[in-house]
Amino acid sequence: MFEPRYARRAEAMRASEIRELLKLLEKPGIISFAGGIPDPALFPRDAAAAAYAQILADPVASSQGLQYSVSEGYPPLRAWIARHMSRLGVPARADNILVTSGSQQALEFLGKLFITAGDTALVTAPTYLGALQAFSAYEPRYDTLRPESGNRTPASYAEAAALNGGSVKFAYVVPDFANPTGETLTADARHGLIALAEELDCPIIEDTAYVDLRFAGESVPAIQALDVERHGGDLNASRVIYCGTFSKTLTPGLRIGWVCAAESVVRRLTLIKQASDLNCSLINQMVMERLAVETYDAQVAKAGAHYRARRDAMLAALKANMPAGVTWTTPEGGLFIWVTLPRHMDGAEILQRAIVEAEVAFVPGGAFFTDGSGKNTMRLSYSLPSEAQITQGIARLGKLIASL
Amino acid sequence: MFEPRYARRAEAMRASEIRELLKLLEKPGIISFAGGIPDPALFPRDAAAAAYAQILADPVASSQGLQYSVSEGYPPLRAWIARHMSRLGVPARADNILVTSGSQQALEFLGKLFITAGDTALVTAPTYLGALQAFSAYEPRYDTLRPESGNRTPASYAEAAALNGGSVKFAYVVPDFANPTGETLTADARHGLIALAEELDCPIIEDTAYVDLRFAGESVPAIQALDVERHGGDLNASRVIYCGTFSKTLTPGLRIGWVCAAESVVRRLTLIKQASDLNCSLINQMVMERLAVETYDAQVAKAGAHYRARRDAMLAALKANMPAGVTWTTPEGGLFIWVTLPRHMDGAEILQRAIVEAEVAFVPGGAFFTDGSGKNTMRLSYSLPSEAQITQGIARLGKLIASL
Repeated sequence: MFEPRYARRAEAMRASEIRELLKLLEKPGIISFAGGIPDPALFPRDAAAAAYAQILADPVASSQGLQYSVSEGYPPLRAWIARHMSRLGVPARADNILVTSGSQQALEFLGKLFITAGDTALVTAPTYLGALQAFSAYEPRYDTLRPESGNRTPASYAEAAALNGGSVKFAYVVPDFANPTGETLTADARHGLIALAEELDCPIIEDTAYVDLRFAGESVPAIQALDVERHGGDLNASRVIYCGTFSKTLTPGLRIGWVCAAESVVRRLTLIKQASDLNCSLINQMVMERLAVETYDAQVAKAGAHYRARRDAMLAALKANMPAGVTWTTPEGGLFIWVTLPRHMDGAEILQRAIVEAEVAFVPGGAFFTDGSGKNTMRLSYSLPSEAQITQGIARLGKLIASL
Repeated sequence: MFEPRYARRAEAMRASEIRELLKLLEKPGIISFAGGIPDPALFPRDAAAAAYAQILADPVASSQGLQYSVSEGYPPLRAWIARHMSRLGVPARADNILVTSGSQQALEFLGKLFITAGDTALVTAPTYLGALQAFSAYEPRYDTLRPESGNRTPASYAEAAALNGGSVKFAYVVPDFANPTGETLTADARHGLIALAEELDCPIIEDTAYVDLRFAGESVPAIQALDVERHGGDLNASRVIYCGTFSKTLTPGLRIGWVCAAESVVRRLTLIKQASDLNCSLINQMVMERLAVETYDAQVAKAGAHYRARRDAMLAALKANMPAGVTWTTPEGGLFIWVTLPRHMDGAEILQRAIVEAEVAFVPGGAFFTDGSGKNTMRLSYSLPSEAQITQGIARLGKLIASL
């Protein structure tokens, strides 16, 4: 009965293979490299317990925390985030910050704000699947960025967009330890992206979900910091919209992320927040502000050491077990290693056998491409299994792949 | 720089007068009848503190509560809501329930699921402003339902929708103690609405934000319960999509509401949830489940007695102070009384003077109409001021209106 009444966009909405795969995690005996979620052993549980207890013991704070609130976000949390952005070279004020339900919500809002059906969104291939899900409801056409190996000319992107009846509305990238590849854009690639966006006169959406999980190598400046520098330090003149989150550093369970951008965009996004869900849980924002003040730097340090050891275990196991012809990335942070198999192999087919024969799970890389390519790739996450499980699981997976 | 890149829909996004008015609440000395938010004195603060503390003291529960989770919602909470719906005559199972960030998010999702630009949404006049904000981003045309005084013929609605290049995608109503009028649809009006929707073969969205705040009169069955009855008790055959919330009975601060509907629609909405913000804060869902189990019936009883006393104070004060020609509704629950002034008066103009001269705030009724009518109306909320403040504030407002 409902089917004929659905909006045209409903055709573009599909279930995430990854989210469906999360269900596999619960099968006993499986060593899963599929999830890509943070290790709960790192969650600041005691600090969260203390923060909730203190707020709820205070009659004024609890009345506030359990009530509706302003759509922009809890002022002290916005102020903390603005200071955090300043440390990254982005001189933000609280008015440049919108608090969102994780950075996923920020991506959804940006799709809603910019995309009319038929417009073009520039994305890398592969890219974060959740971003594609967020944008696709607004019926864009996708065109491909290759920030490291050379983008096409601005005119070529603009003409292809016009042929489709729209224009290029934004360029979306995950510049640090990207999901799914684990790779980081060089400063040169970031400057090149800014130059392209200037020619196209379009915003850049910088999704930094993993940026604070660096455990090796040198930090690269945020694209927003580079662009603000080109505008004499004026964030309100920058075309970069920065999406941040506490999900990977503190906890994803409170659903708190943020947008940092020019005030004009933040005001627009605030209207969208108001119409979408009024405001983020205020008690969670109050707790997150305390966690950020009290634990942020320590949590970042702890997470870096924790994930570095797991990455090292996975790199060593890949080297020891993968047959010739298999290659992989060496991430300097984040949660993912990206594996490229010989051309004739298919990650999705291997997954079926891996679960049954090797009791190992991962995400086939094809899921992260918009064009059906990438079948001979796999995303491996080292965030949840122990080092011993990583060693064991990669050995089993390597044996399977070597037998193909 | 961003302006030329915004989607066409951005034109339809406007700030809520009501949300802007919330800022007036903070001006000292003002007696505000504007807000329409629950009284924080009713929040189950101690039970919430105990629930957070217990969950966070448990290593397994805290790891779960602070982690990502499934988009559908926390299974025990979905099960509680399904039992709750069964008490309302809707035989729901957990698979019929999606947990949302308040019912506001449910409305946004339903706009996204059903409306292609140019389609028609049927709404009452006046109606809940937040619903219009949620739907308007999807660029519908609105047509007017008059469930009590007589809807137009189905053909007339369908033809008008077709002339606009779309079709009628749903009928939206707040049947119980509506925001803004405080009025409740009779059983006859509900049956009439179902008959209209059957002819148009469109869903009905039943927004029940206030339904459990009944403090007088007799309950009227939910539209969904009436429709399920017509389908032999099969919820999966019903065209009614029920949007519920804990915001008015327990607390809005955890941002937890729900949709109860046929499984096919819940599955679609779950995909939208996944793309929008992955999932509602799991720790908040776990806490809400405990609050619901432990306190729901007691909270409903407490809230009813509390708001009844305030409504009574406001009705008495209106009777004592309003000049002839002013009329108002007598709500049997909820938070609002709707005042109709003589035709020549303008609620928005009176508000300006009321704030300065009478130190009283309310919401001018015109904000709740899509067609610019209703200027001579006001929405008064009795939820926050004490009975003494209500008596005093209405006396001051009545004096001002009598002087016009």
